[in-house]
Amino acid sequence: MLNKRNLEFMLYELFDATRLLSRSRFSDHDKSVFDGVLEVALELAKKEFAPHNRKADLEEPHLENGEIKIIPEVGVALAKLREAGFFSAHADFDDGGMQLPNIINNACQAAFLAANCGTTGYAFLTVGAGNLISSFGTPAQKETYWKKMLAGQWFGTMCLSEPHAGSSLADIYSRATPHVDGTYRIKGSKMWISAGDHELAENIVHMVLAKLPDAPAGVKGISLFIVPKRRLENGQLVSNDVSLAGLNHKMGYRGTTNALLSLGERDDCHGELVGEPHKGLAYMFQMMNEARIGVGMGGAALACAGYEYSLGYALERRQGRAITSKDPSAPQVRIIEHTDVKRMLLAQKALSEGALALCLYASMLVDEHQTHPDQLERQNAHTLLELLTPIVKAWSTHYGLEANYHAIQILGGYGYTREYPVEQIYRDNRLNPIHEGTNGIQALDLLGRKIPMLDGAGLKLLASQIQKSILEARAANLFELPDALEHALEVVQQTTIALMSAKDPELRLSNAWHYLEMLGHTVVAWLWLQQASKAHQALQINLTTRETEFYNGKLQAAKYFFHYELPNVVVWSKLLSSLDTTLVDMNENWF
Amino acid sequence: MLNKRNLEFMLYELFDATRLLSRSRFSDHDKSVFDGVLEVALELAKKEFAPHNRKADLEEPHLENGEIKIIPEVGVALAKLREAGFFSAHADFDDGGMQLPNIINNACQAAFLAANCGTTGYAFLTVGAGNLISSFGTPAQKETYWKKMLAGQWFGTMCLSEPHAGSSLADIYSRATPHVDGTYRIKGSKMWISAGDHELAENIVHMVLAKLPDAPAGVKGISLFIVPKRRLENGQLVSNDVSLAGLNHKMGYRGTTNALLSLGERDDCHGELVGEPHKGLAYMFQMMNEARIGVGMGGAALACAGYEYSLGYALERRQGRAITSKDPSAPQVRIIEHTDVKRMLLAQKALSEGALALCLYASMLVDEHQTHPDQLERQNAHTLLELLTPIVKAWSTHYGLEANYHAIQILGGYGYTREYPVEQIYRDNRLNPIHEGTNGIQALDLLGRKIPMLDGAGLKLLASQIQKSILEARAANLFELPDALEHALEVVQQTTIALMSAKDPELRLSNAWHYLEMLGHTVVAWLWLQQASKAHQALQINLTTRETEFYNGKLQAAKYFFHYELPNVVVWSKLLSSLDTTLVDMNENWF
Repeated sequence: MLNKRNLEFMLYELFDATRLLSRSRFSDHDKSVFDGVLEVALELAKKEFAPHNRKADLEEPHLENGEIKIIPEVGVALAKLREAGFFSAHADFDDGGMQLPNIINNACQAAFLAANCGTTGYAFLTVGAGNLISSFGTPAQKETYWKKMLAGQWFGTMCLSEPHAGSSLADIYSRATPHVDGTYRIKGSKMWISAGDHELAENIVHMVLAKLPDAPAGVKGISLFIVPKRRLENGQLVSNDVSLAGLNHKMGYRGTTNALLSLGERDDCHGELVGEPHKGLAYMFQMMNEARIGVGMGGAALACAGYEYSLGYALERRQGRAITSKDPSAPQVRIIEHTDVKRMLLAQKALSEGALALCLYASMLVDEHQTHPDQLERQNAHTLLELLTPIVKAWSTHYGLEANYHAIQILGGYGYTREYPVEQIYRDNRLNPIHEGTNGIQALDLLGRKIPMLDGAGLKLLASQIQKSILEARAANLFELPDALEHALEVVQQTTIALMSAKDPELRLSNAWHYLEMLGHTVVAWLWLQQASKAHQALQINLTTRETEFYNGKLQAAKYFFHYELPNVVVWSKLLSSLDTTLVDMNENWF
Repeated sequence: MLNKRNLEFMLYELFDATRLLSRSRFSDHDKSVFDGVLEVALELAKKEFAPHNRKADLEEPHLENGEIKIIPEVGVALAKLREAGFFSAHADFDDGGMQLPNIINNACQAAFLAANCGTTGYAFLTVGAGNLISSFGTPAQKETYWKKMLAGQWFGTMCLSEPHAGSSLADIYSRATPHVDGTYRIKGSKMWISAGDHELAENIVHMVLAKLPDAPAGVKGISLFIVPKRRLENGQLVSNDVSLAGLNHKMGYRGTTNALLSLGERDDCHGELVGEPHKGLAYMFQMMNEARIGVGMGGAALACAGYEYSLGYALERRQGRAITSKDPSAPQVRIIEHTDVKRMLLAQKALSEGALALCLYASMLVDEHQTHPDQLERQNAHTLLELLTPIVKAWSTHYGLEANYHAIQILGGYGYTREYPVEQIYRDNRLNPIHEGTNGIQALDLLGRKIPMLDGAGLKLLASQIQKSILEARAANLFELPDALEHALEVVQQTTIALMSAKDPELRLSNAWHYLEMLGHTVVAWLWLQQASKAHQALQINLTTRETEFYNGKLQAAKYFFHYELPNVVVWSKLLSSLDTTLVDMNENWF
């Protein structure tokens, strides 16, 4: 479960979400609306999502007489989610939505993900698929599909991968043939389709990538289609020849079905083209970018969930004595008193709250991009978002999982036991570094595309933002933190210059993953510096004991990140700047 | 599965195991005996252990009408293991054993662990429990229990933990009351007992820690007892009042039952004291030290298994094209050609073969300690073994699991799917950083006990061995590797001095985990330097293509470890040397 106090700190103190109230899009709201929505989300997460998290893992969706059986609690929770308006919270009032800022909406999503990522998956995919139709579909498509998805009546999926083509979408085989009625006949196999089949909604709207007969080779020949599970004929829903070819059995996220789908086995699978031919991948990238922030949020939320659980355990469980205690008859201490347990808790706090701040910051950039009154600011927000999306996805999932490692370790034998929740959290989170583009792909996207884009504008913009925070923190006397961050930033900039001047692209990109870690650590250190600044400022006045403790915890976690994590930046930089050839020299026959 | 060529390289080229043939204990053997035993182990692992590894995970031991049901393949594999002599491979000829060196025996164990750690667990615990009786038991106890365990007829366990006392054995509640017949009546609960109940053998010999009525408080009041599941009465095996109170359901190692046992519910649980009263923990440490090397070997073997599988996958799976390729119609390349996949394979190779070398080195030290003709050498081997045991356990399991993370990542979506083996390997391996003493406990043992012991003799001895390898490697012109290792060693020594001069023990030990990582990385770098030296030497003469490739792979993996892993030593050193107070300053109420 997410910590409410921390969420409020991030939304209102760190990112000052209430300033969004001055934007015309949000001017009908006030802070109490945000508070109310968060309250509802946290309650729903606690009462309807968390209770069946383990059951959905144990009794995962399975086939019975050709039908997928899912425990009823999943449907109940999603119905409550629909009733509370979360399928359309982001949408316009005119479309029946709540017109909520993205940052508030995503904070709510984090609450659901922390409580039960498997059940949340169905809603998350529906919203993403719906947004795609809303952005690129015709008015008729919006009316037919999107409206029902906003209402949570029909669900959605994204169908990109095929059994032989996961990361390489250029190589999909699925074909779309034009039909005289203006629609298309779709034929192909789609693999790893999350929420790909179920009876939780009366229909499933698959957003499918396929190639037209005249398609050029590669990614430039991919088009996007709406392929419903059941199509409307004479006002009736009839089978659209989308059949379940198999269920994948995953190590985590077991509550979300994951299917191999066969499209058009009987040559009767109808699809509707979305937007223009051959532009499918560009459209899909909108959904993927949203989904990447969502997956990063999954990594962050599960990291927070593991942290909160292991913290509660460490506060209760008694084991051993202080290392300075010589008296074996003294009562055992709570394990939180052991320094090594404090280390694993602080590591989790620094990583999980760092990741959550990163995901919320990206969510805020979406709002800035969409609603900032100044055009340049809107554009800057978009540039930063483009730069940071691969980091949000990859850093949060990689280090979120590392946090979960510590949660298990704190529980000892109970940690790896299925009667305790942390091993499931760890298994669930292990999917996040892979789906929506592996973390290796994210790193190539960052160093190969996002860093060079617009002549390096993204990193320059980021650096100027970081410099601003450094100056503020230095003025506030925030210990050694501003200097350390400034040093890291210089290292990042020098490393980037060294890499960009490398002529061989394979060599330049060979350590892209470590570049992502280096820049990711610097960005998260920046977010921790800001958190420390806010905490430091808050501590200047009289506070309740609990509030003082809360802010001291923030300061200490910031110090932890700066002392234990940030120094890695230098190690990565040395490796990258030296243009080390170990990897490119490695012949595949030498393994 | 373990790579045979690599195992032979380590045994014969890296550690020169054939020199053991000159020791009187092994003088009846020759190299063909070692080869034969290894061959049998690898075959058994492949034919009898690997095939049911997944089935034993899916159909884990469960209760049916009060009896534990285990899939029959487990019993079959263990019977074959017994027939092949592996329950007594280490024992004297006179006791029916093979009198094999520990390093050869442990190499065989690695083969079984890589193939199926769950089934291997039963044998591993039986051998460890048997050794305890053989070392400290009376002749009658050896005759009654140990002989049957050597024959694989009775199995064994170690019963240390209790529900409220896992890491803190000082706090066990189990009691042993003297009885007029010279035995004891045992009463208590034992938790996390691996192989704690089953019907795979006609009896289970539990090695139980319990306290006598006059026991002093703490660890100095713990005694060791033999508590069989069934005791002999008039030549018949009758129930000994050891009952199964519950099974733990783990995330991995599911094939090994893990039980909560109730001893003496009917006040009829008979135990035999082993050795002297109140010395149980000291005796048990023999078994624990063996077991810690065994658990380290588990971490290493599973790392190797994940590496081999993901390597095979990367050699077959085609996906995407070279980043320099502009032609989308060109055929897809094998993923091993992608530099980022090479990175994840090299990382696995460096970590898994580094860990395996570490565990085999420790195994060799056991042989040196037991059989070296020179008394000083025997003593030195023991000192090194004491120093390295916590590193063997903790480094191999921590970094072995990190290797498995990469294996999953290479397989993409298939990686987290239960139809592919790497997710099980990852789950299995996740137990190893916890059982047999958490890695945090190992770190405290290293920095708190092993480093200061004998006035720092362990580290001095290790440093002199490392220096010897550095000089040899420098003479052989082994690139920059010797200089890098020398620097790391100096850093370790300076850091150790800084820590030992710290007055506050809590502060000194607060970053014990990072000390273990720092020294562990240095030791593994040393082992890689030695591997590189051997490879470099081998490459001086004409070799077959495959042999040349093998040695080039060794050199490249060594470079990887030195360029990507070893530099972390400096980061950990800075943290440790600065006596950073972040952890000790952290108030538990600030979380």
